[in-house]
Amino acid sequence: MSYTIKDDEVDIVIAALHSELTSFMEEWRPIFSRFHIIIVKDPDLADDLKIPGGFNVNVYTKSDIDRFVGSTGAKLHFSGYSCRYFGYLMSRKKYIISVDDDCVPARDAKDLAIDAAAQHITNLSTPATPFFFNTLYDPFRPGTDFVRGYPFSLRNGVACALSCGLWLNLADFDAPTQSLKPKARSSRYVDAVLTVPTQALLPVSGVNIAFDRELIGPSLFPALRLAGEGKLRWETIEDIWCGMCAKVVCDHLGHGVKSGLPYVWRKEGGDAIESLRKEWEGVKLMEEVLPFFQSVRLPRSAVTAEDCVLEIAGMVKERLGS
Amino acid sequence: MSYTIKDDEVDIVIAALHSELTSFMEEWRPIFSRFHIIIVKDPDLADDLKIPGGFNVNVYTKSDIDRFVGSTGAKLHFSGYSCRYFGYLMSRKKYIISVDDDCVPARDAKDLAIDAAAQHITNLSTPATPFFFNTLYDPFRPGTDFVRGYPFSLRNGVACALSCGLWLNLADFDAPTQSLKPKARSSRYVDAVLTVPTQALLPVSGVNIAFDRELIGPSLFPALRLAGEGKLRWETIEDIWCGMCAKVVCDHLGHGVKSGLPYVWRKEGGDAIESLRKEWEGVKLMEEVLPFFQSVRLPRSAVTAEDCVLEIAGMVKERLGS
Repeated sequence: MSYTIKDDEVDIVIAALHSELTSFMEEWRPIFSRFHIIIVKDPDLADDLKIPGGFNVNVYTKSDIDRFVGSTGAKLHFSGYSCRYFGYLMSRKKYIISVDDDCVPARDAKDLAIDAAAQHITNLSTPATPFFFNTLYDPFRPGTDFVRGYPFSLRNGVACALSCGLWLNLADFDAPTQSLKPKARSSRYVDAVLTVPTQALLPVSGVNIAFDRELIGPSLFPALRLAGEGKLRWETIEDIWCGMCAKVVCDHLGHGVKSGLPYVWRKEGGDAIESLRKEWEGVKLMEEVLPFFQSVRLPRSAVTAEDCVLEIAGMVKERLGS
Repeated sequence: MSYTIKDDEVDIVIAALHSELTSFMEEWRPIFSRFHIIIVKDPDLADDLKIPGGFNVNVYTKSDIDRFVGSTGAKLHFSGYSCRYFGYLMSRKKYIISVDDDCVPARDAKDLAIDAAAQHITNLSTPATPFFFNTLYDPFRPGTDFVRGYPFSLRNGVACALSCGLWLNLADFDAPTQSLKPKARSSRYVDAVLTVPTQALLPVSGVNIAFDRELIGPSLFPALRLAGEGKLRWETIEDIWCGMCAKVVCDHLGHGVKSGLPYVWRKEGGDAIESLRKEWEGVKLMEEVLPFFQSVRLPRSAVTAEDCVLEIAGMVKERLGS
């Protein structure tokens, strides 16, 4: 049932929103150095990237993006956080692990760096179980199993297409929440991975995810850009949108989505109160977007992620307008 | 949004499958002594119960059960594990916490007994969020909140009607799994509570649960008894059945179900391999039962748990026969 993922089947994709990547790359060296790495420089960033040696890395910059957009006529925007999606497009590997450049490895109780790449690979290489809830969490983790009463016919599970990690320190709150609780920091390490049940939607954060590009790659693209969004994660909701899109596609195609481990350690961000005005637009938009995604029913003829995304795009145009 | 539950709104219900309850009650004394307790003696048990003093307790025995069954003409069997349901029926409190007599308080990292009652009460007194998945687990726990992208319109949540705890040591595996992994013990303490999303079914274990009797009490009753089932938890599936029934009722009425904390420590059980033959019936039955529960759609006219259970009973008679 489980599948062994080789190192050369994986691309690490990093959206460079900062030009100085030295300490980031050094922190991740023990974990990332065995993989091929794609770094996409935010086209709005002026300074040259500083990347230490010793990595197997391809760097894409504004000129690469312009050439691609020019040649395909695609109306896609790859600036800011969205530049990661250009990395997803350029990858030729089966799996992608994507980590933001303001995150470093989280540390376990013994102060050892947690190998987020290995955990994502474990999540993707073991089946997901979206059709019945296992109260003992991911049954494919060593030390656990299916709970009594779990139907045997569902124990093979399905392919896991998306692994959503969490983070410690700066929690994944929105600007209103962070403004109300300016000192809130996330310190609870929940030692669990679980499959998000079919039909249940979740907000994906692009900060720390991994996915099977062959299965659902086309569903992860920069579809939504807020007018006047800023350069802080909580001022954007492109990843929330594309995560719901990916979940709907997974549900339709019968793939699974896992959430939980691995954790990364996220460094301090900006000023939540200043961001509040910008984020508000995204928060309001969610109220319209959710009923839309909840009601999406894809036709049987949509048998690939690409088919599904084209169908969803058509429905968005028709029903959401903006 | 949260509601304060007073001690006198809670009944602790204990199904006594062993007559010697002294050490069990002493272990739980610091936690249970502030509540009213209902102990139901398994009608198959011959010896008198040994219950230490200092508790506010009502004991029900075979004669109480016989009198009730005689007076109502109910075709209910309250023997073995099912005797707990008689306690649920006798309770006049809003909330019930039910713990098996082979469980003692789990201990935290500082070796202090975990107050399972307090955690169940917290689960029931704070809202559940079944309509959208919160990747940060129960947003009403101190130290966490709703994740970025969680729709504001859903942040009030709904009443939590059922709290399903877990256990350490002897894990909640079925007899086939326990036979394959005779040494498997559950030692991972996952520090999380989460709402099981609407439409997702789960197997409930009656070993360590709490519920709002006024909201869903009628959905927890001994509907299913296997021919030739034994006296070990893994030889029964009455709680699995009634848990699916309760989840369907909660989904229909718009109530929530939480799973996770609290843990209790479960002592060693019997011989899994000997149980295998008996359990197999239950395992096979699950394969038929699941599609049934997945397909149950209750009419709008069913507005209480009692209405829902009567509807489900009718459908069972019609579609499952046995």
